[in-house]
Parts: sequence; structure tokens; C-alpha cells
Amino acid sequence: MKLLCSQKDLSQAINTVQRAVSQRTTMPILKGILLETSGDKLKLIGNDLELGIETYVDAQTIEEGSVIIDSKLFGEIVRKLPESYIHIESDEQNNITIKCEHSEFTLKGHSPVEYPQLPELDEGLLYDIEPQKLKDMIRQTVFAISQDETKPLLMGELFEIQGNSMSLVALDGYRLAISTSTIENTIGDISVIIPGKALMEINRTISGEEESMSMSFTQKHALFKLGSTRIITRLLEGEFINYKQIIPKDNSLVVTSSRRELQDSIERASLLAREGRNNLIKFSITDGLMIITSNSEVGNVYEEVNVTLEGGNLEIAFNSRYLLDSLKVLESEEMNMYFSSSVSPCVIKPADNPGYTYMLLPVRISSGS
Amino acid sequence: MKLLCSQKDLSQAINTVQRAVSQRTTMPILKGILLETSGDKLKLIGNDLELGIETYVDAQTIEEGSVIIDSKLFGEIVRKLPESYIHIESDEQNNITIKCEHSEFTLKGHSPVEYPQLPELDEGLLYDIEPQKLKDMIRQTVFAISQDETKPLLMGELFEIQGNSMSLVALDGYRLAISTSTIENTIGDISVIIPGKALMEINRTISGEEESMSMSFTQKHALFKLGSTRIITRLLEGEFINYKQIIPKDNSLVVTSSRRELQDSIERASLLAREGRNNLIKFSITDGLMIITSNSEVGNVYEEVNVTLEGGNLEIAFNSRYLLDSLKVLESEEMNMYFSSSVSPCVIKPADNPGYTYMLLPVRISSGS
Repeated sequence: MKLLCSQKDLSQAINTVQRAVSQRTTMPILKGILLETSGDKLKLIGNDLELGIETYVDAQTIEEGSVIIDSKLFGEIVRKLPESYIHIESDEQNNITIKCEHSEFTLKGHSPVEYPQLPELDEGLLYDIEPQKLKDMIRQTVFAISQDETKPLLMGELFEIQGNSMSLVALDGYRLAISTSTIENTIGDISVIIPGKALMEINRTISGEEESMSMSFTQKHALFKLGSTRIITRLLEGEFINYKQIIPKDNSLVVTSSRRELQDSIERASLLAREGRNNLIKFSITDGLMIITSNSEVGNVYEEVNVTLEGGNLEIAFNSRYLLDSLKVLESEEMNMYFSSSVSPCVIKPADNPGYTYMLLPVRISSGS
Repeated sequence: MKLLCSQKDLSQAINTVQRAVSQRTTMPILKGILLETSGDKLKLIGNDLELGIETYVDAQTIEEGSVIIDSKLFGEIVRKLPESYIHIESDEQNNITIKCEHSEFTLKGHSPVEYPQLPELDEGLLYDIEPQKLKDMIRQTVFAISQDETKPLLMGELFEIQGNSMSLVALDGYRLAISTSTIENTIGDISVIIPGKALMEINRTISGEEESMSMSFTQKHALFKLGSTRIITRLLEGEFINYKQIIPKDNSLVVTSSRRELQDSIERASLLAREGRNNLIKFSITDGLMIITSNSEVGNVYEEVNVTLEGGNLEIAFNSRYLLDSLKVLESEEMNMYFSSSVSPCVIKPADNPGYTYMLLPVRISSGS
């Protein structure tokens, strides 16, 4: 293999495919990136067997070929090289030479023969979505994914397409986040579970400047296409919880407040809460005023937030972290909270985005605590 | 105690004095900040018995008094409060109330009675120095301080004033950094050893926007005054190494190069070096060309840097980290390196700052390695 490409393009491409390279694998070849000439392009692939990312950079191919190069070292070297042209060459023993201006590196590579192939996906039927829209949907739900390895399905998000409506759903047993939006075309309904790690890497890969993005699904895999980058993830296999049943229909109490004011007050209250039990903060809600309190051995906090309340007064308590996780990812100025009782879930909706729902369970408190 | 002050001023003052508060102390009172009314000011002190920082903020004192408040929690609370006026009150049981707009915190404080006093220093004789100048001198030497607790004197820097010349000297047995500059006035000669931690905190406290700064010394302490902030540190007691004897006088070889190019090449070479032994990189210097190489089990690197050389050719090796530590803190475009042999120390001087000297020992290499 022998080729020339630009340092800037190559550095960016390595950053992209590196997201699928695991440093913790026991298979040394998976710590590498596949480099392969492909016409006037250089193809790069990172693959940890769950998630694979493939991308291309413009290159002048002098001699065709392919090689596996250590991902971390290759990334560090290319990042430190001057903004110029890089000459990459590999021989039959997979010795790799990287030259750029006054620098020359020689590294030992691996044979690409044993490198796992990315699964083939039919790209005939592609769902189109705005990249920024998908990025927002992931960001507003992914924190609610479970970290509990005994519940592997909850370590992913339900990815549902019905007509041209698309929903992402994450839940961990304490809270549930749903983001619903529209896709550009209608092909057929889909219901799959995508691992949290893949969603986070898709989120990072989308810069927000891309104009279009498309998706394709098989029984076992999902493909996300973004420009010349293809992200392929294995799906989690099984039946996702019937989340629609969980969301309370009876919401007799509706609280409306400024999101920013509420977030600031909860953040301050949680400074004391986190030192206590379960990040517990208590809410006492009347029309006009929400009082937030938290007590711990180091002190007490009392916060007032202006609200409007439809329905009767309410006393309720939450884990402050679960509330903040959601408030932090919303942009709306105004938000609504729906309650039915102090032991029933609370539903949060931003005023400007009816497609977003966050539900969380309260913490039961005895009247004396 | 009862007072009003601005959130912004108070938050900044807490950040300043917190630098002298240790979280690892076994004396709970030292995890606190002393708050004390002082006319139309609030005085704040942090003190870990080695380093003490005192500062003042404008305040409207309603009732005089003082209290110790947990530094970490107080800082977090004030940082999160809105940019408004903060009301602070403490009672005889040292219960503290902090109010700001719609927030109210109550915390348990400590009695200030047992809080250690800052040492009294005569402020009659003050040495004046430009704050930015002192900041640069610290930054360009402090990395060469020893981390070896068996050599406590080398964990500080020699602080020498002779006439109106001031030098900071740090050395750790492998390298030596000296920064010399002028102070504004001449009072008397001084030679003290200031702990590295104090120097780093002085460096952080100087924002670079201050107009003036002054210093005072006793047998046991040094005082640095910056606006309304006083930093007082204990001195390290003992005799500093006679560093002037160490610096080689015979420098028959002089290499001149671009600092930036040399730094970039060494940074790339060290990508492979750090995986090998002692961050070893080798230099082969002839007039016109410096060749930098490094070899490890993962690969080799070869770098060329344009240089001019006065004197004979030279082969020499260094720990790349020790070289980079110095190159990174210099701003000059051009730099000179002085050598006498491959086993003698190298002296580095930026072309635009004759007051700065960095000396480092080479790594001995056998001809075969």
C-alpha cells in the first residue's frame, strides 16, 4: 500500500473511526484501525464487534493495499504532524512508514486478513432524518439508559418508527425519557433496540453541520449514514418494556414554571441533598409558590420558585439528580410538570416541545422526615 | 455577625482563599474559611498552617463578628447563587444563615476562637515587583522543583534578591531552571527558600491584570501582597545547593534553532519514546541539521530540524519530558542550546531572554543502543 493524503482530513477521519475502537479488548487486532486504499480514497474502519465505524478520506493512491495500524499511536502521530501531506506506505510484512515533511515514523502493523468484516446492510431502503434532530433526540434521552448490566435491554434505547414519526425511548426503572419527532420519508414501521454506546457515538459523530443523514435496519443491525461515514451497530435482541402503559394518564395537578429558575433552585438544593440520603429534595407546591427544601447533617436549604398550579396543593420528594438530568438537556423557557399524588410518577414536558416526555418516580417520605 | 455583600465579589474572594484550604487535614477547623467583619469590609482567610491567604470584599456590616464556615460547601453555594446581594448572619452557636433572593441556607459553623492566626509580618519594608513578571518567573521554573519528599529543600525554589536583581531557582537533580529579572526598588539582599505549593498558588492568584505587587520577608515567612489579598507562606529552612557551581562554563558547541520546530519534533519523537525506556530520544547534531530519533518495540521515529551549529558535531541523548517541560514554557521564537560533550549538561537559553537558563543532564547511551 502506498498513498498520499492530507493531515487534516486524516486526523479527522481517525477521530471518527477511533470511537469504535476498544482499548480494553483482548484481541490486539481490534486495537487497530483498518487502512485500505479504495480508488482515489483511503478507507478507515474501527470495529469492536458491537459497533463499527467506516469513513473515507481523499487520497492519491500510488499502490493499492491494506494494513491494520495501532489506533491510539496512529492518532497521536497524525495529530502532531504539521498541516501538510502525509505519505503512508506498508510492505508485505505489514511494516508501515509514515512520512510528513521532516518527520518519518516506522511502525509494525498487522495483517488485515483476520480483521472482522463489517456486516453487509442493504442500502436500498433508507430512512432520512435531519442530523441535528437525531442528535437532540439522543441527547435528551440517553442519560436515562440503565447502567445495570443485569438488565441488558435497558442499556439500550427503543428506536421506533411508525409512519413518519420516530421515537427514542430510554428507561432505567426510576425514570423514563421519550423523544418523538418526524422523519423525512415513510418506508415501513420499525421497532429495534440500539445499544447506548452506539447512540452516544452517533451523537458525538454528528457535528450539527451535516445536511442529511440516513438510516437502515436489518434484524440484527442498524446503519447510520452521515456523509462518507457509516456507523453500524448490533441491535439488542429482545422485547422492550411496553412503556406506553407506564405513563400515567391521570394528571390532575399541573405546575408551570420557568425551567431555568427551577433548575437553579434544584441545583442549589442538591448541594446539601447529595450529602444526605438519595439526593432527596422535597417540594411543597401551592398555587403561586413552590418551596424546595433539603436537610442533611451539614445544614438545610430552603428555596422558593414562582409557579402556577392547577389542582390541589401537593407535597412530594425526588432524587434531585434524576430531575436535573432532564432539566439540563431541555432548552425551553417554560415547562410543565404533571402530578396526580405524592406517590405517583411526575411527568415533565417542555412547553415548546410536545414530542418530549420525561417521567420520574417520587421518593416516598414519611411525614416526619 | 450580620452583613451584606455582592455575590460576585464574594465568589471571587472564596476562590482566592480556598487555595490555602486543605481538604486532607485532620483538623476540621482548617477545612473552613474564617469570615470576619472589618469595618466596611468582610475579611476571608484560608490557612493550612504552611500557606495562608487573606482577602477582603466590600460589605455592609450590620453586626460585627466572625465565624468559620466549611470552605467547599460555602464556595459551591455562593457560586450557584444569583448575581445579587447575599445576606450572611451567624449566631452565638455559630449557626450560619445565607440568604439571597429566593434562597436560604442554614449551616453549622465553627467558633473562630481556635482558628490559627496568620503570622504578623512587618510591612514597613516592601519589595515591589510587576505581578506578571513574577507570574512568568514562577511558571518558567516551578516544573523543575523536585517531587522527592526525602529532599524537602528541593521541593521549594530559591528566591534570591541581590540589589535590584531577583532570581528564582528550581532544581531536582536532573535539571535546573533559573529565571532572573529586576525588581522595582532596592532594600536589602534576601536569600530564602519558598515551598513549591506556595509558588503555584501565587502564580494562580495573579490574574495578570493587577498593576502592582509587593513582597516582604522574615526569617520564617514570606508575604506577597496583591491588591487587598495577602499570601503568607512559611519558608523552607536550610541551605540551598550552590547552584552557580553546577552550571557549566565551557560551552564549546552552540546550537541555534526555532523553538517551535524543535518542540514539535521532540513532541512527535516522544510519542514513541515514552513507551520505551526513560523517554529516551537521541540527537545527532551537525551544522545545518539536527536529527532526532527514538526507538521502541512499537516502532521508530526520525525527525529533522534545521539548526546552525558552532563547534564540532555531537551525539547526545535526553529524557524528552525534561526537554519539553522547558520548551513549552518559553515564548521566544529562537533558542540556543549550549553543549560541551555528550556526557555533560546541556544549557538552554531563549534568544530573547538572557535572564532565563535551563540546564539538564543527558542520558548516557552505549554506542550500540
